[in-house]
Amino acid sequence: MTPNPFVKQYLMTAGPTPVPPAVSQAMAAPMLYHRAPAFVEVYERVIAKLPSVFRTENDVLTFAASGSGAMDSAAANLVRRGTPVLACAAGKFGERWIELCEAYGAETVRYEPGWGERLDAAEIDRLLTEHDGIEVVFATLSETSTGIVHDVQAIAEVARKHGAILAVDAVSGLGAAELRQDEWGIDVVVAGSQKALMCPPGLAFASVSQRALDYAADTGSQPPRTYYFDWNKTAKSQRKGDSPFTPAVPLFLGLDVALDLIGEEGLENVMGRHRLLASAARAGAAAIGLELFGDPDERSTVVTAVELPDTIDGGKVPGALRKLGITANGGQNQLKGKILRIAHCGYFGAFDILTSLSGLEMVLAQLGHEVEHGVGVGAAQRVFLEAGVPAAA
Amino acid sequence: MTPNPFVKQYLMTAGPTPVPPAVSQAMAAPMLYHRAPAFVEVYERVIAKLPSVFRTENDVLTFAASGSGAMDSAAANLVRRGTPVLACAAGKFGERWIELCEAYGAETVRYEPGWGERLDAAEIDRLLTEHDGIEVVFATLSETSTGIVHDVQAIAEVARKHGAILAVDAVSGLGAAELRQDEWGIDVVVAGSQKALMCPPGLAFASVSQRALDYAADTGSQPPRTYYFDWNKTAKSQRKGDSPFTPAVPLFLGLDVALDLIGEEGLENVMGRHRLLASAARAGAAAIGLELFGDPDERSTVVTAVELPDTIDGGKVPGALRKLGITANGGQNQLKGKILRIAHCGYFGAFDILTSLSGLEMVLAQLGHEVEHGVGVGAAQRVFLEAGVPAAA
Repeated sequence: MTPNPFVKQYLMTAGPTPVPPAVSQAMAAPMLYHRAPAFVEVYERVIAKLPSVFRTENDVLTFAASGSGAMDSAAANLVRRGTPVLACAAGKFGERWIELCEAYGAETVRYEPGWGERLDAAEIDRLLTEHDGIEVVFATLSETSTGIVHDVQAIAEVARKHGAILAVDAVSGLGAAELRQDEWGIDVVVAGSQKALMCPPGLAFASVSQRALDYAADTGSQPPRTYYFDWNKTAKSQRKGDSPFTPAVPLFLGLDVALDLIGEEGLENVMGRHRLLASAARAGAAAIGLELFGDPDERSTVVTAVELPDTIDGGKVPGALRKLGITANGGQNQLKGKILRIAHCGYFGAFDILTSLSGLEMVLAQLGHEVEHGVGVGAAQRVFLEAGVPAAA
Repeated sequence: MTPNPFVKQYLMTAGPTPVPPAVSQAMAAPMLYHRAPAFVEVYERVIAKLPSVFRTENDVLTFAASGSGAMDSAAANLVRRGTPVLACAAGKFGERWIELCEAYGAETVRYEPGWGERLDAAEIDRLLTEHDGIEVVFATLSETSTGIVHDVQAIAEVARKHGAILAVDAVSGLGAAELRQDEWGIDVVVAGSQKALMCPPGLAFASVSQRALDYAADTGSQPPRTYYFDWNKTAKSQRKGDSPFTPAVPLFLGLDVALDLIGEEGLENVMGRHRLLASAARAGAAAIGLELFGDPDERSTVVTAVELPDTIDGGKVPGALRKLGITANGGQNQLKGKILRIAHCGYFGAFDILTSLSGLEMVLAQLGHEVEHGVGVGAAQRVFLEAGVPAAA
């Protein structure tokens, strides 16, 4: 048997993401009864802190659910059977909007420019003009399957012009990619706890404007399409410091700490950190001689999708990395075997990016691709140094 | 304020060393009463498993103490006031033997070949011949201050030839550097929990042969020199599945798990892993163009002491690394500012070595030393790949 220097595990995925020790420790506290003052205090504190991450004055509604639950809540509250909606999809998670709209019986207009493309606000404008009566637009902030961050500010402008409600999936983007919900006029932003909010999966968020709440309340002659995810019921409950159903107690304890960490670092610095990690990942990939998938720019701060060389069997990359102790995301669906995604959303540091790049260099060599070992790591090191090392926290 | 990609903390020291999550989790279990069957079971299990790591049939005595407590126990049990002993010191921890021997009133013969030198068994032979009546020899397995691992097998041969008892400080070496206590005929090995045993500090060990126990019991006309660290009292108690004083309960819970992890990996593989990490660290340092301190060879598996270039202020290296989130050991005493120690003892993986090398490359550049970024990391990557990647655990 060969000694194995790869027994230690490194979680390098875009979600679940690594969790800060202080968050894990808070979650390990003795269980609290959710109606006891000790928990109600935490609950109210979290509810009070959440809007700042969305840059909104809305109540941010919380659900014990994964991010897809938050997306489901948007479809369930906004889709009326037979009413036209526009669903934008340039990757797997955009396609989830289409699936949801169809599941809830919308008359779904699809805008699908192709995986890796950036959603084009002008094209959305054209579709909203062409298809009369579209009441809701569904779009994605960060498309995790391709690494692309979309310009939801421009999309919001177009939606507003047409009087449509815009719902944005920010499950992976919130806290990692620039998002100014109120300033940009986005009616609905949905998100999850397991990405830049640095918590385990299990909490879903919907930041809903009064206009969208009113739209959701008006189900007309149709029966309500959800019970658990009812936005108006949840909003009413939360405003009383109450949760309509049993909240996921430890996740609130963890989120309480995570939001403080974000607050202490400062949201601008958190965003800047994500931009810097992404820019180092891009420089590393380029130095290894790899192309980036699609058309990423400095907005693409959640994951960096690196095209794998076609000289190797790219489908083997995630498994080879796993043998080194690194769990990383390959491509999904049609991108399976074609890309590797370097994650930098949430509790990632500079040396995590260097570890991902080292792992990539090593498996490329193992799979027969010629690599100058250390060249990607070195390029990323230089990006970090050129950005300047701030005084120790 | 500049965004800080270095907020995440990486513990890269030679002790305390990183602790596997499974060990931390076990230690977080509800506190047990130390006389309750639930704890006695753990206690007996740990006592039964410990000797295999020392490769001994001895009872391994345990103390709630740091590694220095284990060293103190050796001096307290073996030194007789006015009796000649030989204390070997080629670094800070060897010098601790001298301090202990003098504290307990031995007539101390010193063998001090200089920091970074390897203890020479022939020289010890000469000293034992020259100084008649030396009853105990104190030596070090791994000298953490210099990275050198001494040939305690050869020293044991010489001590045996002269009828002297040999006590070896294996605080940092146990489990990381080859050690075969019984086969090599070493009377006493002392160690601590916070190094290759992958636990937090707080448990001290003394593996004591019957001959050494008998020697310790025979205090002659002198009063016993210790109460807490009394080996014979502890041995008697442990044989009954009992501890003479309150044991450090959570550390036993953690060590129970850590010893299982070592058992599952296999001690030979554990040693091999340490050798491989050390050899990658050496290759990395060499590629950066740095010399190793002293005369390390393939035995030096605990830390790699890298000489810092005299073009920079070496004293600034640990602080600069700390700003990057890396806690690492610089030099101690006369080596302060002269070396950086890359740790690989305990729960370290390949990517931790690469992180240490990245950190080193980055701070050298920051301090004005010309570095080809990634060159050390790349060299270490190649060492790992050439060793072969075993099937996933």
